[in-house]
Amino acid sequence: MQAIHNIAEICARHGITDVVLSPGSRCAPLTLAFARHPGIRVRTVPDERAAAFIGLGLAQSQRRAVALVCTSGTAGLNYAPAVAEAFFRQIPLVVFTADRPPEWIDQLDGQTIRQTDLYGAHAKGSFNFPADTIHADAQWHAARLVSEAINLAQQFPPGPVQVNVPLREPFYPKPGEEIRFEDVRIIREVAGPAMLPASELAALRLALRTTPRVLVVAGQHRHDDALLLALRRFQAAYQVPLVGDVIANLHQPVGASYDVRSAPIGHHDVFLGVPEPGLKEALRPELLITFGQSLISKSLKLYLRESAPAEHWHVQAAGPVADTFKSLTRIIRLEPVDFFGQLVAPDSPDSSAPVSAESASPIPGAPAPARLTWPKAGWALSEQDAGTKAAYAMPWHKADSWAKGFLEEFLHPDDQPFNEFKAFHHVLRHLPDHTALHLANSMAVRYANILGMPELKTIEVFANRGTSGIDGCTSTAVGAALAQPERPVVLLTGDVAFFYDRNAFWQNYPTPNLRVVLFNNHGGGIFRLIDGPRQQPELEELFETHQPLTAEHTARDFGLRYFTATTFAELKTALSVFFAPGSSAALLEIATDSATNAAFFEYYRVSVRTSFSS
Amino acid sequence: MQAIHNIAEICARHGITDVVLSPGSRCAPLTLAFARHPGIRVRTVPDERAAAFIGLGLAQSQRRAVALVCTSGTAGLNYAPAVAEAFFRQIPLVVFTADRPPEWIDQLDGQTIRQTDLYGAHAKGSFNFPADTIHADAQWHAARLVSEAINLAQQFPPGPVQVNVPLREPFYPKPGEEIRFEDVRIIREVAGPAMLPASELAALRLALRTTPRVLVVAGQHRHDDALLLALRRFQAAYQVPLVGDVIANLHQPVGASYDVRSAPIGHHDVFLGVPEPGLKEALRPELLITFGQSLISKSLKLYLRESAPAEHWHVQAAGPVADTFKSLTRIIRLEPVDFFGQLVAPDSPDSSAPVSAESASPIPGAPAPARLTWPKAGWALSEQDAGTKAAYAMPWHKADSWAKGFLEEFLHPDDQPFNEFKAFHHVLRHLPDHTALHLANSMAVRYANILGMPELKTIEVFANRGTSGIDGCTSTAVGAALAQPERPVVLLTGDVAFFYDRNAFWQNYPTPNLRVVLFNNHGGGIFRLIDGPRQQPELEELFETHQPLTAEHTARDFGLRYFTATTFAELKTALSVFFAPGSSAALLEIATDSATNAAFFEYYRVSVRTSFSS
Repeated sequence: MQAIHNIAEICARHGITDVVLSPGSRCAPLTLAFARHPGIRVRTVPDERAAAFIGLGLAQSQRRAVALVCTSGTAGLNYAPAVAEAFFRQIPLVVFTADRPPEWIDQLDGQTIRQTDLYGAHAKGSFNFPADTIHADAQWHAARLVSEAINLAQQFPPGPVQVNVPLREPFYPKPGEEIRFEDVRIIREVAGPAMLPASELAALRLALRTTPRVLVVAGQHRHDDALLLALRRFQAAYQVPLVGDVIANLHQPVGASYDVRSAPIGHHDVFLGVPEPGLKEALRPELLITFGQSLISKSLKLYLRESAPAEHWHVQAAGPVADTFKSLTRIIRLEPVDFFGQLVAPDSPDSSAPVSAESASPIPGAPAPARLTWPKAGWALSEQDAGTKAAYAMPWHKADSWAKGFLEEFLHPDDQPFNEFKAFHHVLRHLPDHTALHLANSMAVRYANILGMPELKTIEVFANRGTSGIDGCTSTAVGAALAQPERPVVLLTGDVAFFYDRNAFWQNYPTPNLRVVLFNNHGGGIFRLIDGPRQQPELEELFETHQPLTAEHTARDFGLRYFTATTFAELKTALSVFFAPGSSAALLEIATDSATNAAFFEYYRVSVRTSFSS
Repeated sequence: MQAIHNIAEICARHGITDVVLSPGSRCAPLTLAFARHPGIRVRTVPDERAAAFIGLGLAQSQRRAVALVCTSGTAGLNYAPAVAEAFFRQIPLVVFTADRPPEWIDQLDGQTIRQTDLYGAHAKGSFNFPADTIHADAQWHAARLVSEAINLAQQFPPGPVQVNVPLREPFYPKPGEEIRFEDVRIIREVAGPAMLPASELAALRLALRTTPRVLVVAGQHRHDDALLLALRRFQAAYQVPLVGDVIANLHQPVGASYDVRSAPIGHHDVFLGVPEPGLKEALRPELLITFGQSLISKSLKLYLRESAPAEHWHVQAAGPVADTFKSLTRIIRLEPVDFFGQLVAPDSPDSSAPVSAESASPIPGAPAPARLTWPKAGWALSEQDAGTKAAYAMPWHKADSWAKGFLEEFLHPDDQPFNEFKAFHHVLRHLPDHTALHLANSMAVRYANILGMPELKTIEVFANRGTSGIDGCTSTAVGAALAQPERPVVLLTGDVAFFYDRNAFWQNYPTPNLRVVLFNNHGGGIFRLIDGPRQQPELEELFETHQPLTAEHTARDFGLRYFTATTFAELKTALSVFFAPGSSAALLEIATDSATNAAFFEYYRVSVRTSFSS
């Protein structure tokens, strides 16, 4: 058993501090080793599907690898959705699956499946721990492969790895027997930033200087102050617009000298929905620079595909690169922060300023970014410096500013019927500062991307957009709440995602900082918002799958303080207290009517078009 | 789209009648094709994990393949636990996973993972439907592979197959557009029983005649009247004892001429737990014949491993064979019903009697099997015909009879504390005749195997013993209830399995024939029953994972009539009405105390030993 106990020690030395366990007998030696290790905090979650997403939420929030431990059999298969999400979102998970020894596979014993390489193409690697560790070489192998697995999980792009651990009986130490942690050797892996060759840098700088229409688009990315500062300097040097969805986390106010010309564009979901060829032409990039992962905005994706920039550079240090817009011409193997830092020209006034985490931190009380007025006349180009970078950036900023103004005016009237789009807007405006905001698939993340984050607040946005599943959104938020108990963690979710993953709450660890806002339209409301399914006679039964549940019983079962709102007045009352610190997690259920939601959202879409062309 | 619509027609022509759908947009063409096919019944279940187990329950009960349809992304990964169960339990499932076309994989689009061969070693095969079916060869390919997939799923040993279906937009027919089903060709696959060569048969018969100690052990097997009749004749011809767990489904009374010498042994979990070397020696087989799948009884497995018969024949028509007892010497590639039929010697008085389904059906009102009295003196051998087959069978029957009598006497007193073992016994005795009984992992199936089925009732027993997971026990029972609405379907389950799989009820299809009996000890009570974990200080937090839930809210959420019992008197009252036909499903929650349960079960184990040796 010493080799098993050493696993806990090796994990701890690699910086793993949190382990999510699910109960079982086969995994007991691992469970006890982790539970008794002084440097490890364990939590037990019975439903492995929820457990793995809770682990993912912990890893994402703590920005370090988390280990999972489950027993043999289908337990590990229930991890698969979270493993796939971790794979595509590049979140390091070290998955220990207890197993029977190899000679017992396929021998009709209970809880025995074929666990080798259980996650197939969705794990970075699969390791088989030796069944017997009597021989010194086997001990070397055992310790080495745990280091290798953790290093692989953490290497860029990080992701999940499986360590399959065959275990023979007895599984439990004798009463009073102590678990001893040895002084084990681990293999550390370190890497530093890459530098592009000077000639390559010069060529890229030249292209940047001489191409009038350069656009930077950020995919999903965690909040990173150093990156935001590097981007700001890059924009100052080259005057290029920067576009990003809410999950790109560009929207935080950074420092005091926030300049409107470098303000990120976030309302593209509104203005790119407008069928206006002149606008589309004005926004068209010649050189597109991207970094980060996926985009939410279908409008932006479709627009960039049809706009076909002559050059598309994607900046990513390692790993496979997607050709998201069918225009990729250059892969630049740098971290985005290094790329934007190195690209700032030596003669740029900003380039010599020191970049440090401190100077990049948001400064509370910093003045608000200047607000552009909403130009009723639309996006029309100022032509004073046509053909320059400033001329290209301007319509982006104007369109964004127009969209922001449009939304405020559109959602302002008091006499609109109660609906989830507008209720969502209210909730966003009430988010506490410094919230870790989790957006569930499928409509929550889309609404948020249209509406944008409230200004002057630091809201970090998370969403399971690696696979865009609804299967673990709540569990991920629960993991985040456990990881950062001092910070408000808010989940905005729909009823299908919520009830799907109710077992997120089926564990015994308090999350007083968690607030769940449930938009309950009693079915998959998204299907009523898109043209195809709402025209089918099977809409209600097969797509929307109407369900009558409210969350009240779930809230009672799991000790969540329960709030409800069915009118704007009730919502206002609820929001005045809902986000306040409390002794336990709270749930606000906003009940809306699916048909009203669909009608209002259609009204929104029509209004965008008519307002823009007016 | 015609190639997609043809999928529904091909499935229908292969005899598939039931399809379980989960909502999604990518899968809409499949959804609509199945929903609009006149020969197919579709049901929609939002949680894919539950959906797949519901499909498994349907397939198992209907004894034919069921199709599943899900959207792209992690939806299909949520099927994985049920797919693994279907693989090891040999239940045919045809899993259609909608996908993006191959060129869009890894391009950061939503709900896109690597779906080719999604289930790895746990599917019999994985087929990729062509993304484009313009070319005539592609149409031939498309239709052919669906036939191939269904045939593979149904070929012995049956199991799950994946058909990954890439779909391009548009997903929905235009309003009013009809789906047309073409006259498609399918490839039918038929197979008949094998015949062993006469010389081989003669050799087997000789071995059977000349070996005094021949034992037949049945693994998990569906109820099969023809097999039971063949077994009875085989036993009559060779006088061999037949041992099987409740999941072997040997316990039904078959016909009127039920002979105590051919009564199946079912209480081995009781008497093999007795550390009595004399008994063990008396029961030791020289030739072991097995068929079917897994065993529940750990005592039986350990006993057969240590008894090391010189010969072990396993009868299985095809597929990999487990060497469960480390004694396998011969694999006989026949269906068990054919093996036992062919092995009956031509000169056996029983061999000429016709075997037909009619004669094999249970006859209501047939006289009860004769009851052996409980020999206080134990298992001691009658020695009048030592060395004969009868002499070998006798201690098996005596021990079984003793165990049955012991249980009745042990559980008889009225003053025992309320506990789940005894409550379980009460519930079993009240099961309606012709019940399809579903036993959840982990303790329910073990208790039932100790206690045995009530006499003179036809109870068919089901349990997810392919992987022995708790993850889909309820959903499987829900599927069974949907499949056989005219029959009582009863699930006996514990609280961990129950709450794990609550989403089984999260769908809109009534199951008035379903009765769920929940033994709620507020945690994984099994861990308190086994020596290792109950001695660990982490018992409550990490193993038992105590949870305070009752099922009342769940019952209300899903419209289950709710009964509860916390004493034997309440249990008696509840059972007097609980199983009666009703307008909706019902749930009986039996709340017990984990420590009392553990103490009583320990008392049972000690009593077995002391009573036997008394």
